[in-house]
Amino acid sequence: MKVNNIDYRTLWMENGVVFLINQNKLPYHFEIVESATSSETVAHIRNMTVRGAGAIGAAGAFAMAQACLEAPVETYQSYIEKAKQTISSARPTAQNLFYAIERVYLQGLISPEMAMEEAQRVADEDAAASQTIGVFGNTLIKDGFNVATHCNAGWLAFVDFGTALSPIYTANRSGKNLHVWVDETRPRLQGARLTAWELQNEGISHTIIPDNATAFLMSQHKIDLMIVGADRIARNGDTANKIGTLEKAIAAHIYNIPFYVAAPSSTFDFNCPTGDNIPIEYRSEEEILWCEGLDINGESHRVNIANPNSGAMNPAFDVTPAQFITGIITEKGIIEANEQEITTKLTNR
Amino acid sequence: MKVNNIDYRTLWMENGVVFLINQNKLPYHFEIVESATSSETVAHIRNMTVRGAGAIGAAGAFAMAQACLEAPVETYQSYIEKAKQTISSARPTAQNLFYAIERVYLQGLISPEMAMEEAQRVADEDAAASQTIGVFGNTLIKDGFNVATHCNAGWLAFVDFGTALSPIYTANRSGKNLHVWVDETRPRLQGARLTAWELQNEGISHTIIPDNATAFLMSQHKIDLMIVGADRIARNGDTANKIGTLEKAIAAHIYNIPFYVAAPSSTFDFNCPTGDNIPIEYRSEEEILWCEGLDINGESHRVNIANPNSGAMNPAFDVTPAQFITGIITEKGIIEANEQEITTKLTNR
Repeated sequence: MKVNNIDYRTLWMENGVVFLINQNKLPYHFEIVESATSSETVAHIRNMTVRGAGAIGAAGAFAMAQACLEAPVETYQSYIEKAKQTISSARPTAQNLFYAIERVYLQGLISPEMAMEEAQRVADEDAAASQTIGVFGNTLIKDGFNVATHCNAGWLAFVDFGTALSPIYTANRSGKNLHVWVDETRPRLQGARLTAWELQNEGISHTIIPDNATAFLMSQHKIDLMIVGADRIARNGDTANKIGTLEKAIAAHIYNIPFYVAAPSSTFDFNCPTGDNIPIEYRSEEEILWCEGLDINGESHRVNIANPNSGAMNPAFDVTPAQFITGIITEKGIIEANEQEITTKLTNR
Repeated sequence: MKVNNIDYRTLWMENGVVFLINQNKLPYHFEIVESATSSETVAHIRNMTVRGAGAIGAAGAFAMAQACLEAPVETYQSYIEKAKQTISSARPTAQNLFYAIERVYLQGLISPEMAMEEAQRVADEDAAASQTIGVFGNTLIKDGFNVATHCNAGWLAFVDFGTALSPIYTANRSGKNLHVWVDETRPRLQGARLTAWELQNEGISHTIIPDNATAFLMSQHKIDLMIVGADRIARNGDTANKIGTLEKAIAAHIYNIPFYVAAPSSTFDFNCPTGDNIPIEYRSEEEILWCEGLDINGESHRVNIANPNSGAMNPAFDVTPAQFITGIITEKGIIEANEQEITTKLTNR
């Protein structure tokens, strides 16, 4: 997608060096960081320089390929096996990470060159799947729609185009009028910072709202459709996504508002029978008790925003039961959130 | 309630001067401000030095009494009538404000002294009602319970004791073990700042969570009971309260978790047939796009936390339909959220 009229991917690899848009600096500074080693790339996944299901997957693929390049000939196999474990542990919930690492690892067993090619293929397929998701998802959007979204499942969360936002981009480019309600998405504010930034770059009308206001807007008939992304989808359709997704899905269910998950088939975990089997990442309480931003002079400050003597709990994801999901927009079409649909329509990937 | 072992009310009046705990400075600084005139007191309501249903009501009562003291003899009646309009317009949603002003105004028609006495009576009755709500609400809390709450309906939101937190204080003082999940309550963070501060002062175990996490905790069976406050309750039981309350009530409904509203009878608007008739206050988008706090050196900064070129919408309240409310804890007992219960059990106030 374009930034200041230049086409960018969220991350890419050139001659074994990984380049990433530094998402921790957005929306204030657009900065590309370079990562020359596998362990550096893993650190960028962990500290969320790069975040979002597909982007984590591609970063994991690149990190795995870098490990194959770095591996000494004598201990090649044990080295890349150890690297695989390290990269997998960077974030526990995103299925795309495990999917991507496994693919690159298997090719890496043959040669580092094959690993490099496979990592590039993972990234290219992610971008292509996102673009196709936009085409299918666009069929759900009518002219004049108000669409709500949570967190950032835009192009920054993938290699390009995004998932939840891809249908919105396609609809906008096809000339439909639409307006997007952007959940700010505490604690890390990916909605207010990243989704809003993406939509502004595309010139799409949007409004940031506190996460608390989504159900209110639904009750006021101000939301026609809600689309969110996914970090892992179980075989029965239960979906792990950014904390708060469950609350929005329940409210949409009560108000009869179509609630769609958008995700490529790489997000599905066929070994995971239900959402109960998806591990939930807990992050530092600091993300809730402290907040970073720019003062009126453009200077950055990190400030404590809660009672100083209280602790916080910070689950990064929740699981939305399949019963609250109207459908899943994949690169193979829009499917229902149930085991039969998922296994018959997606397993020939 | 006690602050550093000294008993305080949230606000009080002495010789026509109103004293208020400055809630905009909490939890960092405990500061009492003095307001010598009616218009000054109105400004404190508007800028939220004082906030919360009952505290707004008492502040409005004091402001009305101050206006009666200030009124010139020649134009007494028109002066206090105009003041009544001004004070009423300070915040549009809180029923306690209109209820309190009307009572003091009617006595003010007789004399300023009668207005002063009535304002004091409004404040005393608010404190007494809150205390009784604690006694009734305590019957819902079992030893070992995890109780969730949203926003601040503690003693700072009333003259003393609070509503949603009053049962928690009573339970704690009666020796029950309990733990409180505190929704941080964006955008103004009254949960993370005020409720957490109150609970810490009382030595009650608590954890701040992002508003997005409440349904997740419900789905994990980590919440036994949820109690919230109210800014206005319609005759049919529909309840206006802090934005996000609706989302929590819907989630509690889905997970079969008892969801109670705690409010004195002064919060009920018998002229309001349903929630559709309750006006919702919209506040500045700055409250969402900017955030204030203290850096690690204790210096205060106000920082922009969202995409700088995006706008926001900031509804301060939402309306929870009566069907999602298990019951209402009042100073006259726990009642069901329906018109028959409300009109028969509360109209002899």
